[in-house]
Amino acid sequence: MELEQSAALDAESKIADAPGDHKAELRLWLRLLATNTLIETEIRRRLRERFDVTLPRFDLMAQLERKPHGMTLGELSQRMMVTNGNVTGLVDRLLAEEVISRKQHKSDRRSHIVSLTEKGRKQFARMAKEHEDWIAAMFGELTQSECVALTKMLGKLKTSVRTVAAQN
Amino acid sequence: MELEQSAALDAESKIADAPGDHKAELRLWLRLLATNTLIETEIRRRLRERFDVTLPRFDLMAQLERKPHGMTLGELSQRMMVTNGNVTGLVDRLLAEEVISRKQHKSDRRSHIVSLTEKGRKQFARMAKEHEDWIAAMFGELTQSECVALTKMLGKLKTSVRTVAAQN
Repeated sequence: MELEQSAALDAESKIADAPGDHKAELRLWLRLLATNTLIETEIRRRLRERFDVTLPRFDLMAQLERKPHGMTLGELSQRMMVTNGNVTGLVDRLLAEEVISRKQHKSDRRSHIVSLTEKGRKQFARMAKEHEDWIAAMFGELTQSECVALTKMLGKLKTSVRTVAAQN
Repeated sequence: MELEQSAALDAESKIADAPGDHKAELRLWLRLLATNTLIETEIRRRLRERFDVTLPRFDLMAQLERKPHGMTLGELSQRMMVTNGNVTGLVDRLLAEEVISRKQHKSDRRSHIVSLTEKGRKQFARMAKEHEDWIAAMFGELTQSECVALTKMLGKLKTSVRTVAAQN
C-alpha cells in the first residue's frame, strides 16, 4: 500500500515536473509491443505451416513438457505464456489426439492431472527443436552478450511492472 | 535471397558449432513474451475497468488519432499494434457510437476512409493521457536513459527479426 502510493506519487510528480514527458517510456512500450507482435506473428505462421499447430497448443505442450508429473487445468491456465481463453477446449482436443493423458488427482478427487504422453513428448520435441532454431535465426544479428544484456534489462522492466501491477 | 542464405547458414553453423546452444536467445524470447504479456494484461484490465473499452478499440483509435485525414480499412488493419481479427466489426461499433466517421475515398470509390470525429478525439485524448501515466508508473524503476537504451536494443532485435521474417 505504501509502495502503491509512492509509485503513484512518483508518476504524478514526474508529470508535474515535466508535463507530457513520458515519451521515452511510451516509445519503449510501443517498441516492445511491435517487436513482440512481429516475432509472435512469425512463430504462429511457421508453427501453422510447418506443423499445422497453433501457438496456444505449442505453449500448452511446452508447459507440460517441463512438468513430467503433470499439472491440473488450473495450474496449466496460469502457466500459459500466450493469452488463450479456451484451455479446456484445447485439452479436450489434445486428449482426443492422445498427445496428452488425464488422470484423477490423488488428494483432490474433483480435479484432474494432465500430462504429455510418449506420443506427445516426441511430437513436442520435434517442434521445440525447430522453434529454437527459428528463434536463433531471427535473433541472429544480436551477439550472445547482447542477448544476455537485453534479457537482463527486460528483467528489470518486468520487475518494475510487476510491482505496480500487483498493487492495483 | 543472399541474405536469406547467409542468415540460414549462420543459424546452421551456430547449431553445428554448439549443438543446442541457443539457450540465450530462447531465454530472451521467453522474457520478452512474459514482459509483454504482463504489461498487455494490465493495460487491458485498466482500460476495461476505467473506460470500459478493449485494447483493440484503444489501438484502433490511437492509429486514427495519428492520421487526421483518416485511413482506409486496409491501412488501419495493417497499422494495428495488437492482433485483432475483426477490424470491420470494431469499425461498425465505433461508427454507431459516432466516435469515428466514414466517407467515400476520392479516387477509389469502392473503398472508404474512416477518421475520428470530434467526440472520438476527445474520448481518445482522455484515455491516452491516463494510458501514458500508467506506462510511466509501470516503467518507473527504469531511468530515462535505461528506457532509451532498452528501446535501442529492441530496435536492433526488431531489425534482425524483420530481416529473417521477410525472407520466408
